[in-house]
Amino acid sequence: MALSKKPYKGTRDFLPPDKRAQDYLFEKMHQSAQLFGFEHYDGPLLEEVELYKAKSGEELINDQIYSFEDRGKRFVAIRPEMTPTLARMVARVHREIPKPIRWYSIPNLYRYERPQRGRLREHWQFNCDIFGAPGRTGEVEIVQLLVSFLENFGANETHFEVLINDRTIVDSIFSSLTSNQETIYKLYKLVDKSKKIPEEALLKELGETGLEKQSIASFKRYLKLSSFDELFDFLNELNLSEAADNFKQFYHVIEGQSISKFLNFDPTIVRGLDYYTGIVFEVFDKHPDNRRAISGGGAYANLLQIFDEPALAGVGFGLGDVTLQDFLQSHGLMPDCTKASNDVLVSYQVTEGYQDLAELALNLRRENKKTLFSLEPLKFKKVFSQAEKVGARFVILYGEQEKDQHSVIIKNLASKEQETIPLKEFKQIIKFLNK
Amino acid sequence: MALSKKPYKGTRDFLPPDKRAQDYLFEKMHQSAQLFGFEHYDGPLLEEVELYKAKSGEELINDQIYSFEDRGKRFVAIRPEMTPTLARMVARVHREIPKPIRWYSIPNLYRYERPQRGRLREHWQFNCDIFGAPGRTGEVEIVQLLVSFLENFGANETHFEVLINDRTIVDSIFSSLTSNQETIYKLYKLVDKSKKIPEEALLKELGETGLEKQSIASFKRYLKLSSFDELFDFLNELNLSEAADNFKQFYHVIEGQSISKFLNFDPTIVRGLDYYTGIVFEVFDKHPDNRRAISGGGAYANLLQIFDEPALAGVGFGLGDVTLQDFLQSHGLMPDCTKASNDVLVSYQVTEGYQDLAELALNLRRENKKTLFSLEPLKFKKVFSQAEKVGARFVILYGEQEKDQHSVIIKNLASKEQETIPLKEFKQIIKFLNK
Repeated sequence: MALSKKPYKGTRDFLPPDKRAQDYLFEKMHQSAQLFGFEHYDGPLLEEVELYKAKSGEELINDQIYSFEDRGKRFVAIRPEMTPTLARMVARVHREIPKPIRWYSIPNLYRYERPQRGRLREHWQFNCDIFGAPGRTGEVEIVQLLVSFLENFGANETHFEVLINDRTIVDSIFSSLTSNQETIYKLYKLVDKSKKIPEEALLKELGETGLEKQSIASFKRYLKLSSFDELFDFLNELNLSEAADNFKQFYHVIEGQSISKFLNFDPTIVRGLDYYTGIVFEVFDKHPDNRRAISGGGAYANLLQIFDEPALAGVGFGLGDVTLQDFLQSHGLMPDCTKASNDVLVSYQVTEGYQDLAELALNLRRENKKTLFSLEPLKFKKVFSQAEKVGARFVILYGEQEKDQHSVIIKNLASKEQETIPLKEFKQIIKFLNK
Repeated sequence: MALSKKPYKGTRDFLPPDKRAQDYLFEKMHQSAQLFGFEHYDGPLLEEVELYKAKSGEELINDQIYSFEDRGKRFVAIRPEMTPTLARMVARVHREIPKPIRWYSIPNLYRYERPQRGRLREHWQFNCDIFGAPGRTGEVEIVQLLVSFLENFGANETHFEVLINDRTIVDSIFSSLTSNQETIYKLYKLVDKSKKIPEEALLKELGETGLEKQSIASFKRYLKLSSFDELFDFLNELNLSEAADNFKQFYHVIEGQSISKFLNFDPTIVRGLDYYTGIVFEVFDKHPDNRRAISGGGAYANLLQIFDEPALAGVGFGLGDVTLQDFLQSHGLMPDCTKASNDVLVSYQVTEGYQDLAELALNLRRENKKTLFSLEPLKFKKVFSQAEKVGARFVILYGEQEKDQHSVIIKNLASKEQETIPLKEFKQIIKFLNK
């Protein structure tokens, strides 16, 4: 029986047009991160499972991780997220390097998921983190970078918004409703899914938490808050205004900046039971057919604890390639990547052309010209459709006459300008290409 | 107990200086491949083990592969090499796309190895392949690309050579020595390791093959051949000159080209029992302390057979990042990657600077300037050492006087030129940076 030609379930083959599209996304990631002075890092694809046990949620370990025992009886996993690796690496070197530490990476990650729109088993994730920045400046810079990144694709406030909340605030509100830690845990879970389930179901589950009537009313009011001002009023009412101090600092710094127009408070953003301890945020697509998070992140007081290292505050976000591409496509912001681009198609119409032009093709490449060398004679009338197909801007032709004259015809396909240049006048050929 | 901070055995953490070095290698890979009109592709990290069973050597499957059963009872492996994935992808689409197909990729690969110099469990490999090129032109182009790639780092014929052989020739020589297929298999194994074991051991093993005396003598003579001419004479003597026809075609095409100075015949290059059916080659480091292969490849008549697809001839090479970096370092061809590079360090000496300059920093990034924004007041005398550390070419300063005048001082660190420019004259700031 012949083997299957399909890629493994939930993964993608990147044929050249697909890879060009992905490389376009990656290029913008590198560019945006580096414009903010972030440095590229990477870690191994495999980590010992212990690392994820210490840092990732239980659901991830139990249901979603790709783990196995290696030949040396080490229990390892293909990374399902980058943050544990990042924490391990920062723990290794943070004493020796100046703060703040600004790092980014674009790892591929594996999760055992039922493949569906926007969710695959293998995806790439743009991760940016900043450690040891003073005050709220790290949080502000991370949000700036995230917004700038999306602006780089031509997206603006009509396409996306940054929904934001603060875990300190949520913690103090929930602690004012109940002293039972388990109930608080349940409230987090409820908030997390509050947008995904009908209100009835939410109320039913809320009733089952055993919360008192007044607390239920407060919880419901919390879920209806829709602006920073409403939040601050609500906290005043509950005598919890101090809980907002940190968040207010952040808010006041960012309020004066041009990116503030992207920010909205959203009580349902809590980022599950992740590592976050400060602000948490998600970038939401504003397209009505695609109301989904395309990125999420937040601030954490101490990722290094599990390595017995002193506290080092940080903040970061992750953004997946699949959801990003969906977002860009649904707003018409994704360029056409179907066609390659080359500088020159070197063609010949007589068989001797191969030997006569092979060195020319090589020398064009040495001058940084993307050169596609036709490896067999190409009929004159086929040259131009071929050039079109491979995205060449210039063609070189070599027929009987050129062979006799030791020259080539070179043509600019946009301007239609053409010249006959002797083969030995290589500089003249380059000059024509650079015009 | 605190968790280990070390990466998994045989893998690397890429801290920013390490990643810059690797990105430098990758950048040259992309550049060289694209200059030859090769298109970037990628496949999934996981493939079903069946694929490797059909295509890779037994040793690889039994001893070196990272394989496990997924939660859906699929038996999968982390890719140990790219060629089977490539074959699968080409089998999927080759009927619909024009030939020749020129593809490249830079996948990370996993092999369960005992970590040692140049061999790690995780490495990246530059893979270039061309399918469906007429005659010997594909083989020539692949060798051209490989040589050009290394030349792009400043390497020349004093640093490396391309050792070449042809599997058709080796097959016909060995078949003339014995008709026993098992013995031929053993001879291949012997040739493969002939450079790594002492001559005595080689002779002993050769004696044990059961070859006749005259055949042993011929085999030994074969191993001593050291040039194309000697090879062709030897084949004539054995009445096998026809076996060299294909190879001679290749040789004659490449002989006229500038890259021919890199080529040498080597009888010990056979590339194990890989897929190759035509020419085989390895790039060897000429440094006496580092006589090792840094790349290998060859031509294959039909990779697509296992998918029940018609024959499609191809040729390609693989080149690993670890051996490449060793090669470049041992010849002093690796640049210093310890330091980052930025355009501007935006600093301030008064606390108000943060609010006043945050928007300036953001706008500099919008103008594609790599801008590191100091997130706290930086003493004047520390600004320049800080700029040096982060590789900034310009600094912006903002003290009491600038605050009062709503201006910044901007300084070019190379020319020492400096100017005071009002904050509202953003265009003037950009002009200064572009001078």
